[in-house]
Amino acid sequence: MIKLYGFAVSNYYNMVKLALLEKGVPFEEVPFFAGQTPEALAISPRGKIPVLGVDQGFINETSVILEYLEQTQPGKKLLPTDPFERAQALALAKEIELYIELPARACYGEAFFGMSVPEAIKDKTRVELVEGVAALGRHGKFAPYLAGYTLSLADIYFLYSINQACAVGHKLYGLDLLAEQPAARALLERLEKNPHVQQIAADKDAAMPQFLAWISSKK
Amino acid sequence: MIKLYGFAVSNYYNMVKLALLEKGVPFEEVPFFAGQTPEALAISPRGKIPVLGVDQGFINETSVILEYLEQTQPGKKLLPTDPFERAQALALAKEIELYIELPARACYGEAFFGMSVPEAIKDKTRVELVEGVAALGRHGKFAPYLAGYTLSLADIYFLYSINQACAVGHKLYGLDLLAEQPAARALLERLEKNPHVQQIAADKDAAMPQFLAWISSKK
Repeated sequence: MIKLYGFAVSNYYNMVKLALLEKGVPFEEVPFFAGQTPEALAISPRGKIPVLGVDQGFINETSVILEYLEQTQPGKKLLPTDPFERAQALALAKEIELYIELPARACYGEAFFGMSVPEAIKDKTRVELVEGVAALGRHGKFAPYLAGYTLSLADIYFLYSINQACAVGHKLYGLDLLAEQPAARALLERLEKNPHVQQIAADKDAAMPQFLAWISSKK
Repeated sequence: MIKLYGFAVSNYYNMVKLALLEKGVPFEEVPFFAGQTPEALAISPRGKIPVLGVDQGFINETSVILEYLEQTQPGKKLLPTDPFERAQALALAKEIELYIELPARACYGEAFFGMSVPEAIKDKTRVELVEGVAALGRHGKFAPYLAGYTLSLADIYFLYSINQACAVGHKLYGLDLLAEQPAARALLERLEKNPHVQQIAADKDAAMPQFLAWISSKK
């Protein structure tokens, strides 16, 4: 059976978990906090999560795992079959990762964990978030899903990136990043009604106290 | 005919150009400097290059373009057919992008263009580059190519990321990032002997004066 290594608080972990649940693929969750120990690096070359465990070995990087599942597993398709439409969905996912999730991530420490992030990094993130959300508004179809009529990997990236980005926008800059994006807000509300999304959110809430204790122990 | 939008100085542009040349796919180069004008944003949602122009429209994001070419074009294959091995090659490419190219890019302004990058960002890049190159050493096969016996997209990401990263390492920190990676250095030398790589390097050299003048005009 496919093994999903990581922890339920991670947004990237939850992207893969949602894809597995939507496809109806059986999987086992394996608690794995990664890091820079030799044991962790043998599973994940850069010490990141999630990692997928399959018969042939380990697969790392969320976008790669998601495409591997799409290529090899049965169940609901999360990418269009037409190569051009597939590319649009993948480009939307990549834009969300590079221009929304990663800039926001640079400030998670201050927004969520009581740490301090240097002003230079906060300034850079602010510019990037505003431009990243504008790009999403330009490229997204919101019909009603990001890449068209059905749920795709782009929506999964959106769901598990935009809330954190909005929290960073609000807490660090007093900005409402979705103020001019009603279609994006409506999509978020739609996605949050999905039963698998609600299950993942409950699992995250249950795991949060242990995670915060772990973060606190690392300070 | 496929159109490649961008400019010959860009390392991401050159990743796509090398894939097209290696596959033997005819293409037309269209000078495009992107940016945040309405005209540019109609072609590239985040104002980045490269962009691929095909009959159905535009495709952005280098990794997406490369996969689209792999899926739709004839010629040399740049990804393994086995899904697990394909995932390993894609994961290597993604690791190079996220953990080597992007951290280095945050410091290109100071390393290459006479600008000043805040200390907080330089400190973050240094840590990330050292860990990123270590991850490459762990995950890469160097047999002799990164993902195995033949050239893959992972090598294309490597070729067009590692030189800039090494220059950042040397200029900003006095570090030799490949000091403990002789296999990576040997792979780089091998790749630089490829005639298409040499053609792209000559095109880049020819375009550099105009590019530096453009950068200078933006300061």
